Amino acid sequence: MLTVVTGAAGFVGRALVSRMDAVGVPGRVRLVDRVAPHAPSARFEPVAADLADRAALAAALDGAECVIHLAALPGGAAEADPAASRRINLDATLDLIDLLAARSVPVRLVYASSIAALGDALPDPVDDGTPPRPAMTYGAHKFMIEVALADAVRRGVVDGIALRLPGIVARPAAPSGLKSAFMSEVFHAIREARRCIVPVGPDATMWLLSARAAADALLHAAAVPRVPAACVLTLPALRVQMSALVATVARGAGREADVVYAPDPATEAHFGRLPHLLTPAADGLGFVHDGDLGTLVTNTLGGLAGG
Amino acid sequence: MLTVVTGAAGFVGRALVSRMDAVGVPGRVRLVDRVAPHAPSARFEPVAADLADRAALAAALDGAECVIHLAALPGGAAEADPAASRRINLDATLDLIDLLAARSVPVRLVYASSIAALGDALPDPVDDGTPPRPAMTYGAHKFMIEVALADAVRRGVVDGIALRLPGIVARPAAPSGLKSAFMSEVFHAIREARRCIVPVGPDATMWLLSARAAADALLHAAAVPRVPAACVLTLPALRVQMSALVATVARGAGREADVVYAPDPATEAHFGRLPHLLTPAADGLGFVHDGDLGTLVTNTLGGLAGG
Repeated sequence: MLTVVTGAAGFVGRALVSRMDAVGVPGRVRLVDRVAPHAPSARFEPVAADLADRAALAAALDGAECVIHLAALPGGAAEADPAASRRINLDATLDLIDLLAARSVPVRLVYASSIAALGDALPDPVDDGTPPRPAMTYGAHKFMIEVALADAVRRGVVDGIALRLPGIVARPAAPSGLKSAFMSEVFHAIREARRCIVPVGPDATMWLLSARAAADALLHAAAVPRVPAACVLTLPALRVQMSALVATVARGAGREADVVYAPDPATEAHFGRLPHLLTPAADGLGFVHDGDLGTLVTNTLGGLAGG
Repeated sequence: MLTVVTGAAGFVGRALVSRMDAVGVPGRVRLVDRVAPHAPSARFEPVAADLADRAALAAALDGAECVIHLAALPGGAAEADPAASRRINLDATLDLIDLLAARSVPVRLVYASSIAALGDALPDPVDDGTPPRPAMTYGAHKFMIEVALADAVRRGVVDGIALRLPGIVARPAAPSGLKSAFMSEVFHAIREARRCIVPVGPDATMWLLSARAAADALLHAAAVPRVPAACVLTLPALRVQMSALVATVARGAGREADVVYAPDPATEAHFGRLPHLLTPAADGLGFVHDGDLGTLVTNTLGGLAGG
């Protein structure tokens, strides 16, 4: 059994590799990214490849029996450079689907989509029937791939499943090209006793998942015995209010929070007005979020301490 | 003013060119297709070009102030060859959007989408909020372009409008690669006093527009002063029952109808179970269908007699 993870050097990729190592996912694992990712043991094979190069992509996928496709240009960078987003988030991913579709036996493909596919103008609650209306190029490209993947699944050529990831915490403090970075910065700043200026108000609501829970969801998707016909799943996530997140992180880190709320209307519209979320399709397949805010914070601070 | 029409040698393209000539649409018109289209007068410039060749596409679009993009691989052919559908229906159309997006002034782009974007499992009624769930590769690619176009409109780089065309009658009797060809064959067969075997039952319901009304809708979209934010429009269409269509065509053609109903479940599921249709967004912008079945049949038989 060979599993290929693309984007394995990224934030979610590193969390996934760490979990694969910790829980002892069987078989070999090829870790692909623009720079060779860290390999925790000999059964992990690091590969440096530019997936926008079709030959390199084909080589990266060679022999794969399961592919977890995380590689992407993040939201802020995609919005600043739609042509680059097309190359990476759209064309390279369509090439990946086409290459897998040419196999004689359908390959399990876990595609990391995003709640950015849903857009801004969301009903309350959002559920599995909510029509996506992406409001950024990143979300538009993620949604287009969901449509292409569903068509490949319908044709029976790929055993695909798309997971819409919510906000994942806590990304590294370094600039990530993600406009939602503030959700992670709260963890870093409080832990390091720094002042944190957040671009949303205390009442802002977000859908969050710890990196560990996101990794577990990706592994669960790789192992689900049978992909449902409706193969695009919004993952369950905790709906968290910013002020509650700040208080819980402060308690978890044993620090005073020094948070300044400086709401930016555009950022709050994109990332801070998430309504209630119902995910019966994913729930029925056994996908879970962190459980409660205390556990999400513990899982997240634990990852920061370990990493 | 230079208008470029792609797919101008196709069925809808020819109807559009004929209407542009008849109503005296101002300015020059470049007619593009794989083979040079028929030009009804000197202000129409026929161009043979393969739009999947990016240089040829750029040349075809050069100087265009309005583009009506009809070129497409039809549904049956797309389903049989998804890679070709990707090249033409997806990649070439994304290239077209990107080329127009690079202009200093946004260009009006009228994109011929299809009700195939909506898919099969339709609620009754279908309205502007019905979430598309394409059930064929053709519809998946049409829908993906709708999403890309809406993103380009949101970014302000293209003055785009997508029209979801219903069944257009009457296509030429020759094999078209369209699984919905039977809707047109009814007109040809009755007019020519031939027996017609239709792959749906007498109670099958379809959304229809005459080629003339479809051409007028495309011209209306080219001329609408301001594109709405929700730039993807399902066109109004007559909901027609097969038995009523047969009777009305027979009356219009002055012939006995010799129609044998041989329903095929898959064809009926794709094309013969269309529910009621509400199109308030398009209605509000002044788009109209043929009005009633008698007029649709008259418009269609008139086109056949004239062509």
